[in-house]
Amino acid sequence: MKPTVRVLIASAALAGFAVSTAPASRDASEKAATFVTRIPSGYRDWRLISVAREEGSLDDIRAVLGNGRAIHSYREGKLPFQDGTIIARLAWSYDPSEENNRVFGRAQSFVAGHPKNGVQFMVKNSKKYAATGGWGFAHFDQGKSADEAMLKTCLPCHQAVADRDFVFTRYAQ
Amino acid sequence: MKPTVRVLIASAALAGFAVSTAPASRDASEKAATFVTRIPSGYRDWRLISVAREEGSLDDIRAVLGNGRAIHSYREGKLPFQDGTIIARLAWSYDPSEENNRVFGRAQSFVAGHPKNGVQFMVKNSKKYAATGGWGFAHFDQGKSADEAMLKTCLPCHQAVADRDFVFTRYAQ
Repeated sequence: MKPTVRVLIASAALAGFAVSTAPASRDASEKAATFVTRIPSGYRDWRLISVAREEGSLDDIRAVLGNGRAIHSYREGKLPFQDGTIIARLAWSYDPSEENNRVFGRAQSFVAGHPKNGVQFMVKNSKKYAATGGWGFAHFDQGKSADEAMLKTCLPCHQAVADRDFVFTRYAQ
Repeated sequence: MKPTVRVLIASAALAGFAVSTAPASRDASEKAATFVTRIPSGYRDWRLISVAREEGSLDDIRAVLGNGRAIHSYREGKLPFQDGTIIARLAWSYDPSEENNRVFGRAQSFVAGHPKNGVQFMVKNSKKYAATGGWGFAHFDQGKSADEAMLKTCLPCHQAVADRDFVFTRYAQ
């Protein structure tokens, strides 16, 4: 496998998927889908789980946010995550801050720039997504969902942390 | 000035201060204080403003969170920030993730480790803190407030962004 392809796949795996929370009867095609095709609403208001930095071709700084059920499970330390849990991965360009560097007196400060590498979600529904560890995965770039071929690459990497219910990110105290 | 001192001062300036929101009548000494001496409650539940990374002696990865008034002002793009605004800076050790690196197939992933460099706050009260740009500053390390000598170093650096109401961090879209 080419390194570029490998990184793309790993990127998808480390962050992303999304599942619809709309009643299945409203959209038969959504019900049949293996992956999430609609962006969960209000995710930018969710609480912080943790932050991270990816070098390499991703070259971003990122935040992982969780809805109420996600935060509850993290804080309780209880696995598996409850149905209804949604975890979001946002990422931005990793920009040096000349403004901050001037204050620090040296080049050391990097801040979030423009949105980068899409937004990714994991949505827990143990029945609907039983075939993929109970999680529906999603990746959106400028509002557009990735195709199934890409989304199918999520689970194989998340298998590495099957003992943490397939979730890489740990809660930052 | 020694470089170490300079970095400590800049660190305080880039992030930190905190103000009490308790009625002044409850604590006369608090009323007279120039700086914030109590940790604002519930800050870990606040919404994300942005993320950043500091190299050098700070060597951390950080998140800046805001209470409801902070987020409202950021999203509206309105300055100055309203009284009652509180901005929090959390930081953690910048830890390589061997677990993630194995998935990516290369060393590129860094995650938040243990809490580091304290928690800092800026609390807006244009009357109470009129002498310091309308902001009360705070820095807490393991629950203990920094002394006034350190907190007095906040404003001089924040003067660099007086035109943004003394706040360095920009909202990450």
